Amino acid sequence: MNHTDTEVWHHLPENARARIRDGLFTGPTAGLSPGYVQGNLCILPQDLASDFLRFAQANPKPCPLIGVGETGSPLVPALGGTIDLRRDLPRYRVWRNGELVAEPTDITEFWRDDLVAFVIGCSFSFEEALIEDGIPLRHVACGANVSMYRTNIPCAPAGRLAGPLVVSMRPLKPADAIRAIQITSRFPAVHGAPVHIGKPELIGIADIARPDYGAPVEIKDDELPVFWACGVTPQAVIAAARPDFAITHYPGSMLITDIRNSRLAAL
Amino acid sequence: MNHTDTEVWHHLPENARARIRDGLFTGPTAGLSPGYVQGNLCILPQDLASDFLRFAQANPKPCPLIGVGETGSPLVPALGGTIDLRRDLPRYRVWRNGELVAEPTDITEFWRDDLVAFVIGCSFSFEEALIEDGIPLRHVACGANVSMYRTNIPCAPAGRLAGPLVVSMRPLKPADAIRAIQITSRFPAVHGAPVHIGKPELIGIADIARPDYGAPVEIKDDELPVFWACGVTPQAVIAAARPDFAITHYPGSMLITDIRNSRLAAL
Repeated sequence: MNHTDTEVWHHLPENARARIRDGLFTGPTAGLSPGYVQGNLCILPQDLASDFLRFAQANPKPCPLIGVGETGSPLVPALGGTIDLRRDLPRYRVWRNGELVAEPTDITEFWRDDLVAFVIGCSFSFEEALIEDGIPLRHVACGANVSMYRTNIPCAPAGRLAGPLVVSMRPLKPADAIRAIQITSRFPAVHGAPVHIGKPELIGIADIARPDYGAPVEIKDDELPVFWACGVTPQAVIAAARPDFAITHYPGSMLITDIRNSRLAAL
Repeated sequence: MNHTDTEVWHHLPENARARIRDGLFTGPTAGLSPGYVQGNLCILPQDLASDFLRFAQANPKPCPLIGVGETGSPLVPALGGTIDLRRDLPRYRVWRNGELVAEPTDITEFWRDDLVAFVIGCSFSFEEALIEDGIPLRHVACGANVSMYRTNIPCAPAGRLAGPLVVSMRPLKPADAIRAIQITSRFPAVHGAPVHIGKPELIGIADIARPDYGAPVEIKDDELPVFWACGVTPQAVIAAARPDFAITHYPGSMLITDIRNSRLAAL
């Protein structure tokens, strides 16, 4: 599917999900259904669900929960009455013992009665608020996935779940960085304010030009790298904690919900 | 007067001003009357007053007006019923044609019927909020006046008034810098959020170790310099615009008002 002929089909979340469900769109969801919340997905067996709930509670910046399914159910009616998490994301990652084993576009064949789905807020919501304020985002201008890095900042552990904080990075001019801190502070349900600014070496990023996820972007001399907690953190935790089974979204290919971004603003 | 025996006299603003008025305290006011707003002072002849009002309106970050006197009056009852601006600040600066001509502790002999007094919010209010949040401020720990710099950022001109933005600088760890941006955003009447962070050379500061006003402080390797608009800006404007007469406070020796800091919080 070519983005030039997609101006109508994806505007309403339900229409976007229908197209994705039919297998007609398998790419990144950035820019689809503007104005609506998108979410990171983490699906775990029930025996890890309470650990994950405690992990999310203890780590609200990387893991702001915006929806939790009933055990065995691929539905999250609070985020959209027609959502089916088995088919409504463009691409998934399936994990066994912390190893990535498949990247399918549909997880119907992997679904089990003991799975619990967690949907976590996504930076696309705050990026929309930044762009509306006139703050340029280089990865958006480049049409690339945002740069993401595993840091040396440990998440607060919970039961069997532990691992490093993953951050996304956007290079901004200093005045834009200050404004971006103000704007994203209004959106705690989508990672909130940055966790770090400048000096990547202080959080264990050895080479800013080589992100662990996503694509690299240039940082100009008059810009500072600004780091936000990232919803890919559960994937780093899965790789570290090695649960026997897990499913996540494929980075950049998110769940599109029926919730408007403005409804997530704290004030 | 020794600070070790000042624990009582300065707690109430009225008592602090009485001691200052009597000539018993002539130093910096940082730490006096904790919890109460302090203000920068700028006194101009009436023929420049409307230019200054427009200047302050156009430059709210360096010049947030919190009080304006009637023409010829040294009183600002909105900030404290007993305030007499001719005697209630520890030290003043008197300017003629943009040149500093005196630094008296009392300006009664300089007072004229055509003078208009402007009181501008001061960073002491937001510093108190930062310290209460557990953010260390090096110049406070050192007992020094904050570092201040003339920048290459021009203020918006108004009539005969024009000049560079002056900023104060505090070195902070990145996470503290982010939190400080959030906290100071709540206080637009005392300069609000920073105007710059990191990279002093981008705003025309050639040598961060040599401030134009105040004292230098160390910036450690794991810290960023964070820059706020400063109420000393009118003094740089006076030096640039060279009005035939002006009086300001002496940097660091402020007006102590009866207004509580918390009353300046926007939310």
